[in-house]
Amino acid sequence: MQIKVLGAAAGGGFPQWNCGCPNCRDVRAGTLDAARRTQECVAVASADGERWFLLNASPEIRAQLESYAALHPRGPRHSPIAAIVLTNGDLDHTLGLLSLRESHPLVIYATDCVRRGFCEDNSLYRTLQRFPQQVTWRTLVPGQPQELSGVDGRPSGLMIEAVAAPGKPPIHLEGHAAYDPAENIGLVIEDRATGKRLGYFSATSGITPAVRAALDSADCMFFDGTFWSSDELITLGLGAKRAEEMAHLPVGDAGGSLEICAGIRAPRRIYIHINNTNPLLRQHSPERMRAEAGGWEIAYDGMEVAL
Amino acid sequence: MQIKVLGAAAGGGFPQWNCGCPNCRDVRAGTLDAARRTQECVAVASADGERWFLLNASPEIRAQLESYAALHPRGPRHSPIAAIVLTNGDLDHTLGLLSLRESHPLVIYATDCVRRGFCEDNSLYRTLQRFPQQVTWRTLVPGQPQELSGVDGRPSGLMIEAVAAPGKPPIHLEGHAAYDPAENIGLVIEDRATGKRLGYFSATSGITPAVRAALDSADCMFFDGTFWSSDELITLGLGAKRAEEMAHLPVGDAGGSLEICAGIRAPRRIYIHINNTNPLLRQHSPERMRAEAGGWEIAYDGMEVAL
Repeated sequence: MQIKVLGAAAGGGFPQWNCGCPNCRDVRAGTLDAARRTQECVAVASADGERWFLLNASPEIRAQLESYAALHPRGPRHSPIAAIVLTNGDLDHTLGLLSLRESHPLVIYATDCVRRGFCEDNSLYRTLQRFPQQVTWRTLVPGQPQELSGVDGRPSGLMIEAVAAPGKPPIHLEGHAAYDPAENIGLVIEDRATGKRLGYFSATSGITPAVRAALDSADCMFFDGTFWSSDELITLGLGAKRAEEMAHLPVGDAGGSLEICAGIRAPRRIYIHINNTNPLLRQHSPERMRAEAGGWEIAYDGMEVAL
Repeated sequence: MQIKVLGAAAGGGFPQWNCGCPNCRDVRAGTLDAARRTQECVAVASADGERWFLLNASPEIRAQLESYAALHPRGPRHSPIAAIVLTNGDLDHTLGLLSLRESHPLVIYATDCVRRGFCEDNSLYRTLQRFPQQVTWRTLVPGQPQELSGVDGRPSGLMIEAVAAPGKPPIHLEGHAAYDPAENIGLVIEDRATGKRLGYFSATSGITPAVRAALDSADCMFFDGTFWSSDELITLGLGAKRAEEMAHLPVGDAGGSLEICAGIRAPRRIYIHINNTNPLLRQHSPERMRAEAGGWEIAYDGMEVAL
């Protein structure tokens, strides 16, 4: 299985447009040993390597697709993107759909509530409803695996299964609907031929038995690396909310993901969806050395993983 | 007046994600004498050079703001962007607003119908309604000049006047409301101290007496350079619509803007909002040489103009 990280940052990217925190300030000044990152998006190739599935559609999708030649069109009107999979309805995961509006048929996998949250009361979505079947929605139901395919239905050789993960609704829907456990999911993607499994949990506030089982079965896991510590934004004077209030399990705190995941067997463990304030972004920070000593890698734009 | 072009392309950018036309194909291959371009966005500085006004908010706004140091924050939470001006409700002009969602107060200038078109029936907009006055809308009324300012109301030294321009509603609102002539506007921005005037008409299907008067009064004009010819997409086999059906006056046809604008006095005339298919993008194409012989420049990302 070929995996390409197109964007590794949390919402806002790194640096973030209105942020002058030490990380953002110093990366702009060129004095920080850290790479800029666009907002989270990962591409996974079909077993034959010809087609690609995007995990989430970041606002920066245009530059992300251009950044990787395998994702370029092979004809006057063409895209190797067979489908897009949404893990929740956050704008940093969905806004890019509205940048794919050039009358191109799209297949989008999402849970029912994520689909409804994006499509209902959203006049902008009409830009993707210009002809019948411009968008084909396919429903992800936690615990029910299915084979990924594009608009032509041709099998990809990849099975996908959604796993409900503790989370929250997107900010623009908070308070507008009862919370559905399928608002936020992780993914297990398995290559049918090799049995290799990718676990993808880019946002979660905790590790349930189902999440744990998914991670334990994976050959490679991507996991929520938004914040190093619960009070990261508070300490920097940039916000009033703790990581958990934004539905993110911090990495380095007591009870954080470094500690909880220590026993997980996945040979490759990769933090993704990294906030601009996170010390993990700095190449030689003590926090990063601690994560690396625990067997973790830190995702970056352009990272490739082969399973 | 300092003017910085952050993005010079029409919707979809150059190259466009699903386009393999000769321009897009060859620029990706590195065999075309042409520069890549992001989607249209232009920044204009206040008279004191300290604050900036964005004309339109492209989907690629994050990378565009990062591309120019004058637009970077000067504190932990700060932006030199004082306000954003919308010339219509097209997604390539408005989607970027939803990327400025980090709880930062925004001022947006738009006509009433463009504001309503963006805010009504748009649940995504709630991401900009997280606290009172997160967005301050200021109304542009064609023919009524006002002084641009940011959230603090401090005068910018720049007067702005909207000019109704022949256009159409954004695709996602077509057929959903009666057409209002203020759906699509051009801008005249004047430096109060020097009297220098910028005319900005990045999308129009024709030149009315009001548009003509605005252009005639300008020291520099940006004008709709979407398509070279009316049948550009049809000839390339990429679409069924003529330029005029998409509310764009072609550049090079009989009765096109090159011909109509030949007598306009603006010392600098610049085509912007250039579609990926347009031969103007190619540095030495016959079409480009014709435009340059007529006194026109072709906008590119990073272009600077001082008036």
